[in-house]
Amino acid sequence: MHHKFMARAIKEAINGMNKNEGGPFGAVIVRNGKMIAQAHNMVIKTNDPTAHAEIMAIRRASKKLGHFHLPDCEIYTTCEPCPMCLAAIHWARIPRIYYACTRNDAEAAGFDDNLFHKTITGETSKNRVSLVQVERTSCLKLFEIWEQKKDKIFY
Amino acid sequence: MHHKFMARAIKEAINGMNKNEGGPFGAVIVRNGKMIAQAHNMVIKTNDPTAHAEIMAIRRASKKLGHFHLPDCEIYTTCEPCPMCLAAIHWARIPRIYYACTRNDAEAAGFDDNLFHKTITGETSKNRVSLVQVERTSCLKLFEIWEQKKDKIFY
Repeated sequence: MHHKFMARAIKEAINGMNKNEGGPFGAVIVRNGKMIAQAHNMVIKTNDPTAHAEIMAIRRASKKLGHFHLPDCEIYTTCEPCPMCLAAIHWARIPRIYYACTRNDAEAAGFDDNLFHKTITGETSKNRVSLVQVERTSCLKLFEIWEQKKDKIFY
Repeated sequence: MHHKFMARAIKEAINGMNKNEGGPFGAVIVRNGKMIAQAHNMVIKTNDPTAHAEIMAIRRASKKLGHFHLPDCEIYTTCEPCPMCLAAIHWARIPRIYYACTRNDAEAAGFDDNLFHKTITGETSKNRVSLVQVERTSCLKLFEIWEQKKDKIFY
């Protein structure tokens, strides 16, 4: 089964490269042994820096199932998810990731996954993004409104 | 200026809550002192777990500018970005984040930002997602194809 699902993810990645839509990455979401979403990286085609294969697959699967949580799904990805995709998988409540290449393999091919991972975990001081806190008091009221909201839906 | 841009982000967040589209979060992207994209969390409305305010704002700004990199932009967000949004900001090459509330404020209101941050940095062992490596050899060829691709575009 692993081979079959990863082969589909590989096919996606090759397809995406051939069409110049994105980098060499593909992903597949599986539910009850069936593939319900396939995707490849589409950053180049869509001009959307968030259009990684895993994000695209999650968007398609959640649209198909009509829910923002996918707790009975698994994701196959040709490369270890970057921190964006890893956190997206957490938000989607997907409990298991099958990945093939590593962040070091991606780095060797020129991608920044490893650098961003190290930045977020604090393993490097080469942080390209500065974080400045402003206006906290004004924004805290948003959580008060949320708290008081009777029909709120948690995600 | 901070107040003006954050006020717009707050307005977005309130609007999103009122319409039951998502949680209490808003974001604004600014370029040369002008707001070029505004967004609120839309996870509930779109059933897309990746539809956080910052991700939506990045998608809109990159679409508007026609490029997946936004190096001359800044982002204002009503709450410290979760790891997904933080990494998305890195991928978008946005060099500066102005944030208001913290991940602890979000946690106090019931959101998992802090848990996912701790999971990714390894600060907690409460990892809800298991990572299993399979089929690396089959997938390594994707990077070889990429290496040999003459018209590739890096992002």
